[in-house]
Amino acid sequence: MSTDILAPAVDAPHDDLLTIDPETADLLFREARTVVRFDDGDVSDAQVQAAYDLVRWGPTMMNTLPLRLLLVRTPEARERLAAHMNEGNRAKTLAAPLTIVAAADPAFHERMDVLAPHMPGAHDMFEGYGVDGRADVAQQSALIQIGYLVVGLRAAGLHAGPMGGFDKDGVDAEFFAENGWRSQLVINVGTPAAEGASYPRQARLSFDEVSTAV
Amino acid sequence: MSTDILAPAVDAPHDDLLTIDPETADLLFREARTVVRFDDGDVSDAQVQAAYDLVRWGPTMMNTLPLRLLLVRTPEARERLAAHMNEGNRAKTLAAPLTIVAAADPAFHERMDVLAPHMPGAHDMFEGYGVDGRADVAQQSALIQIGYLVVGLRAAGLHAGPMGGFDKDGVDAEFFAENGWRSQLVINVGTPAAEGASYPRQARLSFDEVSTAV
Repeated sequence: MSTDILAPAVDAPHDDLLTIDPETADLLFREARTVVRFDDGDVSDAQVQAAYDLVRWGPTMMNTLPLRLLLVRTPEARERLAAHMNEGNRAKTLAAPLTIVAAADPAFHERMDVLAPHMPGAHDMFEGYGVDGRADVAQQSALIQIGYLVVGLRAAGLHAGPMGGFDKDGVDAEFFAENGWRSQLVINVGTPAAEGASYPRQARLSFDEVSTAV
Repeated sequence: MSTDILAPAVDAPHDDLLTIDPETADLLFREARTVVRFDDGDVSDAQVQAAYDLVRWGPTMMNTLPLRLLLVRTPEARERLAAHMNEGNRAKTLAAPLTIVAAADPAFHERMDVLAPHMPGAHDMFEGYGVDGRADVAQQSALIQIGYLVVGLRAAGLHAGPMGGFDKDGVDAEFFAENGWRSQLVINVGTPAAEGASYPRQARLSFDEVSTAV
């Protein structure tokens, strides 16, 4: 049982404890990489929907489902987005087949009637939080959903390049002035280029290094 | 192609676009449920490690890997934790085979030398953020990692009951006074009881309802 932080992904001492097969574990987690350079293949709406149709079943606080997705496709929209990306993220955002702005919706509570009909007071409770209070609530669950989304995209045969380096207020003003969404992460999506798709893999912390028991 | 928010999990119009097999899609997402009542089976450290050994490969900002796990096992620790849970979460937390406090570590930057050796300035940059600035950075990636963790636990044959209803400051003072971790979510873990394992399933928003394109 290795606890070496430099242990390669193929070191899998607990394969026998997994319910999924090793190839799937590799696909979704162990061999999957953040992609910075994609091939020219298109990413269809149906592919993203296939990923979302998995992701939407993941748990969120009170089933609020606050994650929202802006699919950036046109050259014009791509330029508008790139203007708010940190310089190091600009070229790859312009070049990706599809870029998704993953956002949280502070107006999530307007859907509580269908999402949590057994809690009829939920809408009014969240209404009382105000928009910034709801934005905090939405952010927490939306980020957890982004974790599901990274795995879901891989399950749909896609690869992700998530980026936190951008001007959130700028993106929100540029794209979300009307609907009030709050951007959380920008994710390039596609299939990896034959060369230069990913940077060299970095180390990970072992279970013993991140956990303690009481 | 259904966009009915009440469409059951078995309605899977895009199965042909998935790279994983339908049974795995069901196990990890579509049929998986938040569990509130577990059977008496133990959850071993090795099982949680099997989940974490998947999760740790998921991307985080600058490979910071800020997620930390407190495994609450002893009756004494369980009582200490339950005292900070909202009343509705207390009994199930006391009864679960294992409870994990998922936390973010604002001291994540102390490991940047091994996690991002190609960015030698990373430690000092994050040192300059101060502890609360680093806590914000850590929270974002830790929440995304919690998304990976929910999926990873399922991949390891476990079921999760995530809870946001607890006094975070109280839990942090109780358990993290020394290491400075910041609690994000409390997750009961085990295998489902034969009866009453989950509440009735609620609706989900469709892809069309959560996405827009530009």
